[in-house]
Amino acid sequence: MTAPAHTRRLAILGLGLIGGSLAVGLRQRGLVGEVIGWGRRAASLERGVELGVIDRYTLDLKEAVAAADIVVIATPTLIAEQVLAELKPLWRDDLIVTDVASVKGNLERAARQLFGTPPASLVLAHPIAGSEKSGVEAAHAELFVSHRVIITPLPETAPAAVEAVTALWRDVDAEVVEMSVERHDTVLAATSHLPHALAYVLVDSLAGDPAQRDIFRFAAGGFRDFTRIASSDPTMWHDISLANRDALLLAIDQFSAGLKALRESIDRRDGPAIMATFERAKEARDQFAVMLERQRAATTSQE
Amino acid sequence: MTAPAHTRRLAILGLGLIGGSLAVGLRQRGLVGEVIGWGRRAASLERGVELGVIDRYTLDLKEAVAAADIVVIATPTLIAEQVLAELKPLWRDDLIVTDVASVKGNLERAARQLFGTPPASLVLAHPIAGSEKSGVEAAHAELFVSHRVIITPLPETAPAAVEAVTALWRDVDAEVVEMSVERHDTVLAATSHLPHALAYVLVDSLAGDPAQRDIFRFAAGGFRDFTRIASSDPTMWHDISLANRDALLLAIDQFSAGLKALRESIDRRDGPAIMATFERAKEARDQFAVMLERQRAATTSQE
Repeated sequence: MTAPAHTRRLAILGLGLIGGSLAVGLRQRGLVGEVIGWGRRAASLERGVELGVIDRYTLDLKEAVAAADIVVIATPTLIAEQVLAELKPLWRDDLIVTDVASVKGNLERAARQLFGTPPASLVLAHPIAGSEKSGVEAAHAELFVSHRVIITPLPETAPAAVEAVTALWRDVDAEVVEMSVERHDTVLAATSHLPHALAYVLVDSLAGDPAQRDIFRFAAGGFRDFTRIASSDPTMWHDISLANRDALLLAIDQFSAGLKALRESIDRRDGPAIMATFERAKEARDQFAVMLERQRAATTSQE
Repeated sequence: MTAPAHTRRLAILGLGLIGGSLAVGLRQRGLVGEVIGWGRRAASLERGVELGVIDRYTLDLKEAVAAADIVVIATPTLIAEQVLAELKPLWRDDLIVTDVASVKGNLERAARQLFGTPPASLVLAHPIAGSEKSGVEAAHAELFVSHRVIITPLPETAPAAVEAVTALWRDVDAEVVEMSVERHDTVLAATSHLPHALAYVLVDSLAGDPAQRDIFRFAAGGFRDFTRIASSDPTMWHDISLANRDALLLAIDQFSAGLKALRESIDRRDGPAIMATFERAKEARDQFAVMLERQRAATTSQE
């Protein structure tokens, strides 16, 4: 089903930070035969060729798919649904189609609507990497090193297709894990989509108050780190908020209940309740920091 | 009223990150005659002497105050109120008393209760610096360089006393600004106290859900930065939450209203409303990042 790593041909549909970093990561490691880029507009694709991120590009989806063993949908989340529809008439038995979108449930629903039974060669996946930067200019070959890629096989997905996509990500030194679509969307709502929503709301509520126009002048390092993700691409997070609507609403509600409880503790000057919340959180965050430190140490020792 | 910088004598009451960094910053610059440390327990004070942060220490408050021209209350926020009460019988006309606490309104109230009319030589101040680290071990001479120190003079505060405390902070290369107590507490509630509360609540609500025990394994860089402040000292933030209760409750309510509005936009799939929130926030956060970059450039060119 799959070509040897150094001869396989990749089509990247949508050339931004993630698709570009996968392409250049494989090319710099000599683990791909050819990478062809496809998109609606030539500008970022031309830039991708100039930067050595891709070998060549086309604006013709049919041509891109015909030239590939593996197609990676790397467009913004909601556009990925449209691209899947455009791929349907171009589907072949020997083609593997995968994606990099931050939400998986909407693509599963789209696949079921389009195909009835989703194709065995469709492998939904999500590399947990990125930054507040975006675009092919930010792409780099080491973006995924020691980062997790979550593959969410459907009951219909062929094991061989999952293996091919797993190999693709391991080839850029990512760590691949599998989970269900539902679990993925719940976990990501809590650890990623909710924090982005909170950061956007905080900055917007401060910036929108004219009485507080110079308020940012008095912000310290904690505020800088806390709000960094509010500089992320609004279109990307708009798409994610809609694509993962149900899980995000649940995460917001769970958070709001916690905030309401803390508010009530502060309101009634309940010191022990406030302390209990802060101590539990610090303990969990400190454990998380230790885990991150171990990951970093493991990464360094591999270099 | 004040001694020349290199001969003035400082008493630091409570030797942690902030008091220790002020002490060692002045000592390393040769801008202090002597620094005496005072606290309830000898351990951190002994460590302060070992590390060269202070010259000597005492457990006797009367002795510490008698040896000083300027007394800096650098204990946790709520304890600062008690220390102010203990200072009352030791007050002298030629003594300046200042503090470093993160909330100013509770100390103004304490001063009015204790003294009726607050002493002209009491200067409430707040250096906006710190980290999730705490304790004298983390103290360092450059902590305040290009950081803001907010001085909040009361109507009763003597201009000469404000000048002496301003000089003290400029001597460790901080940038001093003045504002009212009320404005300070409102601004800090929004830019510091609220973000800490949000980070603590987020981590606590995730860590408290047994179904999500391994959820942090799938968290990316954004989550790491967003939750860093949840590793801050729980006692410090417990104190701040109670000391600045009213302003913090208002900030929580303002934030909650913003979150509710975003929740409703997501619930009714209102893409334009979601985009508007995220775009306004990104623009404000990007402007904030530019301001930080300018500050950093200014700092570098001074070195």
